[in-house]
Amino acid sequence: MTNIAILGFGVVGSGVAEVIATNNETIARKTGEHINIKYILDLREFPDHPLGGRVVHDMKIILADPEVTVVAEMMGGAHPAYDYTRAALEAGKHVVTSNKEVVATFGAELLRIAKEHHVRYLFEASVGGGIPVIRPMSSCLAANELSEVDGILNGTTNYILTQMIHAGKTFEEALAEAQEKGYAERNPAADVEGTDACRKICILAALAFGRLYAPSSVHTEGITAVTAQNVADAEALGGVIKLIGRAGRVNPADPDSDVFLLVSPHVILHENPLSCVDDVFNAILVRGNAVGDVMFYGRGAGNLPTASAVVADIIDILTHKDAEIFVPDWESAVGAPADHTALPYAFLCRIETSAPFADAIASLQAVCAGAEVLTSADAFDGTLAFVTPVMSEAQLRTMAAPLGTLTSVIRVMP
Amino acid sequence: MTNIAILGFGVVGSGVAEVIATNNETIARKTGEHINIKYILDLREFPDHPLGGRVVHDMKIILADPEVTVVAEMMGGAHPAYDYTRAALEAGKHVVTSNKEVVATFGAELLRIAKEHHVRYLFEASVGGGIPVIRPMSSCLAANELSEVDGILNGTTNYILTQMIHAGKTFEEALAEAQEKGYAERNPAADVEGTDACRKICILAALAFGRLYAPSSVHTEGITAVTAQNVADAEALGGVIKLIGRAGRVNPADPDSDVFLLVSPHVILHENPLSCVDDVFNAILVRGNAVGDVMFYGRGAGNLPTASAVVADIIDILTHKDAEIFVPDWESAVGAPADHTALPYAFLCRIETSAPFADAIASLQAVCAGAEVLTSADAFDGTLAFVTPVMSEAQLRTMAAPLGTLTSVIRVMP
Repeated sequence: MTNIAILGFGVVGSGVAEVIATNNETIARKTGEHINIKYILDLREFPDHPLGGRVVHDMKIILADPEVTVVAEMMGGAHPAYDYTRAALEAGKHVVTSNKEVVATFGAELLRIAKEHHVRYLFEASVGGGIPVIRPMSSCLAANELSEVDGILNGTTNYILTQMIHAGKTFEEALAEAQEKGYAERNPAADVEGTDACRKICILAALAFGRLYAPSSVHTEGITAVTAQNVADAEALGGVIKLIGRAGRVNPADPDSDVFLLVSPHVILHENPLSCVDDVFNAILVRGNAVGDVMFYGRGAGNLPTASAVVADIIDILTHKDAEIFVPDWESAVGAPADHTALPYAFLCRIETSAPFADAIASLQAVCAGAEVLTSADAFDGTLAFVTPVMSEAQLRTMAAPLGTLTSVIRVMP
Repeated sequence: MTNIAILGFGVVGSGVAEVIATNNETIARKTGEHINIKYILDLREFPDHPLGGRVVHDMKIILADPEVTVVAEMMGGAHPAYDYTRAALEAGKHVVTSNKEVVATFGAELLRIAKEHHVRYLFEASVGGGIPVIRPMSSCLAANELSEVDGILNGTTNYILTQMIHAGKTFEEALAEAQEKGYAERNPAADVEGTDACRKICILAALAFGRLYAPSSVHTEGITAVTAQNVADAEALGGVIKLIGRAGRVNPADPDSDVFLLVSPHVILHENPLSCVDDVFNAILVRGNAVGDVMFYGRGAGNLPTASAVVADIIDILTHKDAEIFVPDWESAVGAPADHTALPYAFLCRIETSAPFADAIASLQAVCAGAEVLTSADAFDGTLAFVTPVMSEAQLRTMAAPLGTLTSVIRVMP
């Protein structure tokens, strides 16, 4: 029997207890032992829960108990989650977590501390909820030099965009509905402004490229500015708008080239499998030099899916006792990732112009050979939708300046 | 340095050599050592290949060399691949393979032999080419009781169906094109008749449910009977036709209930993420009681993707030396899986009738309340397309008998 402690008995923490209670026999068949939740650390009491008697309010009790070999941290927030994680690792206990904020901010340091104390720090649940992606990236794709990771990493924003695309709702209507259904919080900023997706792409980039950039150093645009008009323009181009976290090598063929990271709405053309990922589902596409593109898809949030990943990490620890496991070395990156404005993109644009339709098109084509106009003469309302050839954002801004005011610029995923 | 032997220097075997040559430094960074291909076993000589000097023709040389700790079997076919695998395991060497025929037929026995000799038998490359699926199913989803696995498991047939769906080709035209492009072999039987997909769903079912059914015991229909008319009927229903390998618990809520397996064309409705998997891509959808549905997507064949999975297995062995690894216990299933004709399905049907349109519809609705007719009066040509409510195939046959001749019956994926 392995004794574990759960830190934080909220949605995910109680989900972990539920998965263990439901599937403990299956787990024991696979690992040879049962999991026992010896302690639950929370500020609250849970008198009506079957495990209510295991609740403690002092982390020192857990740290001091040699019977506890695994700590599952599901508190959320940076502190005290980071501090407790560190203390647990230093006390020689394995730690598994769903806390993306802690992993994205302190992951490099915590992995180093884990290594020093011959324990493991696992965080499958921090990205993509229950979707297996962290472990497959570090093991199944280990034979590959990875050049890019793209993900639909936030279920709330994907639900809102899906409603805008398939039900013709405005951003405000879709957000209100998401809040009603419990998919979005009352204060939806971390989701709709891209903060959550940013933390997750930082974690994925560290796995792929061995370097952990601070989320604050990553250019992050949310979906608050996406309009029904943008959705229609993307459709005219043969795609859909998705909030994408994107990380890659500036030169995909050179594994020593700089790493770029950004989070922003992108047009995903229908050929790209990410275009089919709707509602609250998440998906992560990984590109390797041997395997090509692989994609992992599933529910990116929710108590049981996320708990499924947390418990999988616990099982991984149980089935690899005393093993010399490879621990990734993450460099703590100093400074910012490569300049995202220099990345080559086609851009889906709307420009406001005072010129008549024919003149506006002539001016556009004079400065931007190869631009494809998406607005017909009939639909012209003083704004023109077009898609540029591949260029940098800096080139786009210079090119468009004499034409009028760019009212929207959306990257088209290459 | 780890010395390995490659058995079979065809498409995949030479791909493994290429991946190791290209990414050996990356691999060494992750595992702490380089991989050295000490021997290549093949009937042929490869005088122009840089590794041509490592070619041997006698398996005994490899078995007798204690420096070889890992054997990578990529010969294809049941014999002598099975015999060499068995001998290697008995000689205390780990074996990794891409050979689905050997795994699907002898996997239970070979896993047992591996366990007895404290070595590992890994086969990530046997299903889905480079797509990580075997390891994620056995590790990342270990906290789940799995109830179903559905897969687009054969790239050739998926390419043919994609051409029929999106380019309006007939089966014969699409097959000819696939052969021209090298996606289909001159004798395409193993692909188009479903044999290849059948072996793979047997392996996935064994992983999910712990029991290995003989491929010969699984009801297997290929795509040779799929017509342009079927494709159009599926579209009218809001879906696409895909060749699906399907395995699951007869009662999804009961982990002790019988296991069903079948391979057949299915209508996949557009809401299902498998409907977006086109061309030579493969995808595997797994359903767990905690995680819900997750899907793994990528290139299901090709030398480098498959080699990527083979080398990942080698890396797994290198990074878990001396570890007590959980080895799945596969029961060799005696007899056939659960009766597939009893499975609940909606069926997309065409029926040939001598009755006029209105009478045909009236008769249909008299025997099958809730059947939805897809043929309009204008399009009626003596055959009627309809979709049934959920029923068993046995019920369908009984129900339809008085109506006319069923010219096609395609399962609609629930």
